[in-house]
Amino acid sequence: MAPEKEFVKAITPQSEDFSRWYIDTITKADLMDYAPVRGCIVFKPDGYELWEAIQQDLDRRFKATGHRNAYFPLFIPESFLEKEKEHVEGFNPELPWVTEVGGEKLEERLAVRPTSETVIGYMYSQWIQSYRDLPLLINQWANVVRWEKRTLPFLRTSEFLWQEGHTAHATEEEAREETRKMLDVYTEFVESTLCIPVIKGQKTPSEKFPGAVATYSIESMMKDGKALQAGTSHYLGENFARSFDIQFLDKDNERKFAHTTSWGMSTRILGALIMVHGDDRGLQLPPKIAPTQVIVIPIGPAKTRERVLAAANELMSALQNANVRVKMDARVDLSPGWKFNEYELRGIPLRLELGPRDLDAGQAMLARRDTGAKLTVPLADVATQIVALLDDIQSSMYERALAFQKEHSKRAQSIDELATIVRQERGFALAGWCGNDACEALVKEKTGSTSRNIPFDPPAHIDHCVACGHPAQHTVWYARAY
Amino acid sequence: MAPEKEFVKAITPQSEDFSRWYIDTITKADLMDYAPVRGCIVFKPDGYELWEAIQQDLDRRFKATGHRNAYFPLFIPESFLEKEKEHVEGFNPELPWVTEVGGEKLEERLAVRPTSETVIGYMYSQWIQSYRDLPLLINQWANVVRWEKRTLPFLRTSEFLWQEGHTAHATEEEAREETRKMLDVYTEFVESTLCIPVIKGQKTPSEKFPGAVATYSIESMMKDGKALQAGTSHYLGENFARSFDIQFLDKDNERKFAHTTSWGMSTRILGALIMVHGDDRGLQLPPKIAPTQVIVIPIGPAKTRERVLAAANELMSALQNANVRVKMDARVDLSPGWKFNEYELRGIPLRLELGPRDLDAGQAMLARRDTGAKLTVPLADVATQIVALLDDIQSSMYERALAFQKEHSKRAQSIDELATIVRQERGFALAGWCGNDACEALVKEKTGSTSRNIPFDPPAHIDHCVACGHPAQHTVWYARAY
Repeated sequence: MAPEKEFVKAITPQSEDFSRWYIDTITKADLMDYAPVRGCIVFKPDGYELWEAIQQDLDRRFKATGHRNAYFPLFIPESFLEKEKEHVEGFNPELPWVTEVGGEKLEERLAVRPTSETVIGYMYSQWIQSYRDLPLLINQWANVVRWEKRTLPFLRTSEFLWQEGHTAHATEEEAREETRKMLDVYTEFVESTLCIPVIKGQKTPSEKFPGAVATYSIESMMKDGKALQAGTSHYLGENFARSFDIQFLDKDNERKFAHTTSWGMSTRILGALIMVHGDDRGLQLPPKIAPTQVIVIPIGPAKTRERVLAAANELMSALQNANVRVKMDARVDLSPGWKFNEYELRGIPLRLELGPRDLDAGQAMLARRDTGAKLTVPLADVATQIVALLDDIQSSMYERALAFQKEHSKRAQSIDELATIVRQERGFALAGWCGNDACEALVKEKTGSTSRNIPFDPPAHIDHCVACGHPAQHTVWYARAY
Repeated sequence: MAPEKEFVKAITPQSEDFSRWYIDTITKADLMDYAPVRGCIVFKPDGYELWEAIQQDLDRRFKATGHRNAYFPLFIPESFLEKEKEHVEGFNPELPWVTEVGGEKLEERLAVRPTSETVIGYMYSQWIQSYRDLPLLINQWANVVRWEKRTLPFLRTSEFLWQEGHTAHATEEEAREETRKMLDVYTEFVESTLCIPVIKGQKTPSEKFPGAVATYSIESMMKDGKALQAGTSHYLGENFARSFDIQFLDKDNERKFAHTTSWGMSTRILGALIMVHGDDRGLQLPPKIAPTQVIVIPIGPAKTRERVLAAANELMSALQNANVRVKMDARVDLSPGWKFNEYELRGIPLRLELGPRDLDAGQAMLARRDTGAKLTVPLADVATQIVALLDDIQSSMYERALAFQKEHSKRAQSIDELATIVRQERGFALAGWCGNDACEALVKEKTGSTSRNIPFDPPAHIDHCVACGHPAQHTVWYARAY
C-alpha cells in the first residue's frame, strides 16, 4: 500500500482574503490552470464539465423558445466593425488583429471576434428579404476574445466561451419582447439551476452595450458583496440593421429595417457559481448542475471490504436507477478523512458513507455539503431519501443566497452612505439617480462602485439623486463589480 | 391564400458536373452560406444541426472510452510552434498571425491554432509528474484555422470545427494501442451512424501528420470516386514530449518521456455525408443522424383538413412515443408536390402522406428517400413499421455505399492502369509500393492521385511497385482526393 497522501490543499479563508480564497479554490478543485498566453486560461476537465452542464441546460431552453444554433466565422474584417461607430469605439481597444497569414501581409486586417453582431448583421442582410423570413432566431456557441487589461480566471479572460443569441424582427415591439424574454430565460436558468438570485433591470446609458438602444442585465451578489453581471440582453433597435442594410418587404409592401436583438451568457457565470456558494471548505455545487451529485465512500478495515463494496455497489445501482449522478471512491491508499475533505473541496452536494457497522445496522450515513448536517438512512430508503435531499439542497442553496443578498442590500441617501455600504459593509446600495451621466460618474469616482442596473422591480423608490440631490428619475443599484 | 411557391431548386445532375451538384445541394438544402471572410463559411441551422448530432454521438463514444473534455487557448505563441521542427514546417504556410492588439504591437506573434499539440504539450508538461498521472486522456471541441489556398465548403475551409483528442501514456505500447483504439472508434461511428464504409490503414511517411511517428486514417469514397479522409489518429512517439519536456517518474523511479497521441475528426465529415449518399434529388441522411427522420404531409381538400390533421397528430404522438424524430408540414399555401421535392432535397429518410382516402382505408402512405419505394401501412402499425423501416434504411444505405466502393476499387499493375482507374473510371486503385518517396511522388505527378493509406487489411497483395517495378514493400490505395 502506498503511503497516505497528505491533505495539503488548505484554502485561504474567505474572511482573510476573498481573492486568494477564490484562486485557491478554483486551482485546488482542479477547475482551471493558467495558459501560456496572456490573460488566457485552460478549462481543465472538472471546470469544463461544469460549462458543459450549463450549455446543455441553456441550449434546451433556447431551443424550447424557438431558437436554432448556427456558426459564424471567427474573423471579422475591419471594414465591418467600422460600420457601427459606437460598436467599434467600444471594442477597439481590446481587439486582437490578424495582419498576416503564412509569410504574407493581408490586404485588410481581420479582428478576432469580440462579439458577432457585425458579421451576423451582414449575413442577415443576405438572408432576410420578406416579412416571411422573420423572426429570425439564431444562437451561436463560440469562443470570443477581448484583450482585457486586468484578468481573473473565468471572470475576465482574454479568450472566453459563451453563447450569443442574435435575432431579427419585423417590429420594435416584437424585438423588445424578445429582449425581455431572453432575460427571463437567463433569470429562470440562473435562479432555478444555479441557485443564484438575480436582480433584473436596465443598464444606464453609460453601461450599455456599444451599439445598443437598451441593455438589460441580471446582476448577482458574490459573497464578498461585489456584483457580477450574469447575463445581458440587448435591444439593438435599427442600429445594426441600418449599418448592414437588413431590410425586408413588409406585408404592406413597404421596405423596412429589421429590429434586432442580441443576448449572451459566458463562462464568467462559472465565477458566479463559485463565489456565490463556495465557503472555506471549497466549492459548493447545486445538485442540478453538479456533474456528480453523490459521492459514495466505503469505510472500514480490509476484512470487511468485500462485504461493504458489494452493498455500496447495490446502492450505486439503486441511485443510478433513480437518475442520480453518483460516483464511488473505493481507493484503498487514501483515508476516508482525506476523501471527505477532497469531495467537500470539489463541492459534491452529498456524501454517502458506508461501513461494516452501518451494514450491521441496516443503514448508511449521509452528509450534506451545504449545511454539514449528517443523517442516517435505512438502506432500503437511500435512493428515495437522496432524491428528496437533493431537491432540498437545491432550494436551500437558493434561499441561503437570497437571504445573503437581501442582508447585504441597503438604501443609500448620500454618497457617503453609499460608500460605506459598498466598501465597509460590502454590499449593494440602492440610490436615486437624476439621469445625469455626470452624477453616475461622480458616484463611481467617490465610491469605486458602478451602477449595476435600474431594477424593474425596486424594493423602494428614492426621490432624490444620491449625487446632486435633485429629483431622481430612476432608482439604481450601485455596487463594486467584477 | 398566398400564391403557390414555385419549386425552383433544380440541382445540377451528378453525372453532368459533380462539383456543381455538390454546391447546388448544400446551398439549396440550406446547410451553409459563404462568409465575407476568405475561405470561410457560415454553418446555417440545418447544417449546424447535423454537426451537433455528430458531436453528440462522438462525444458519447469518447466518454465511454474514458476521455474527458477540456478547453485550451485559441492562440499559440510563436516560440511554442518552433519547438517541434517538422510540425512548424508543416503548418507555417497556413498560419494566421495576430501581431497587434488594440493599437499596440505584440512582443511575440500569436498564431491562431491550426491544431493544439504544442500548447497542450506545454500544459501536459505541467500536469504530468508521475506514472500515477498517466494515462491522461483529454479531448477538445474547438475551432481551428488553416489558411488553405483552395477552399470548398465543409471539405476545406480556412476555419473549421473539429475535435482533437490528446493523450499521454507511460509506454509506447499503450500509446500505440490508444492510437488504434480511437481509429476504431471513428470507424465504428462513421460506418454505423453515418453509413459510410471506410478503409483503415496507415499513411505513408510523406502523408503523415507533421511531427507524428505514425499516422493512421480512415478513407471513404465519394460518389465521384474521389477519396475523403474521414478521420486520423497519430502516434506521436516521444516527439512532442521531448519538445515540451513531458517527463514523469516511473514506477522504477526513473524519469521518462511520455508517449503521446492525437486524433481528430472535423466538419469535413459533413462533406463526406453529403457526397457518399446524395443523389440528383438532393441530400440523403441516414436515419441515425437525421435531425428529422420522418416528415408527415397531410393531403387533401380544405373540407377534410380537420379530420386529416387530427389523425396526423395522433400518428405524430405515436411516433414520438416510439422515439422517432418526426415533424409535420401542414402549411396550406404549399402543394404536396412542392413539399415532396423539398424534403427529398433535405434528405429526410421517410415521408408519411396522409389524406382522406387513406383515412377511409385505415392506412397511411410511406415513401423511402433512399429507394423511392412507396408502401401503404395500416394506421395502427405505423409506429412499429416506421421503426423497422428506419433500421432497414440505415443498413441499406451502408450496404449501397459499400457496394459502390467495392465496384469502384481496382488493382493497378502499372501507372497507366492506375491513371485509368482514378481518372476515367473514377475510383480507387490498389497498387504495390517499394517504399520509396520518389515512386509515390511519381504516381502523384502522372495520375493526379495520392496515396490514401496502406490498408491494414488489403483485399490483395501486389508484389511489385507500380512506379519502378521493384519488389513492393507495401500495398497502397491510391485515389484522387478532396
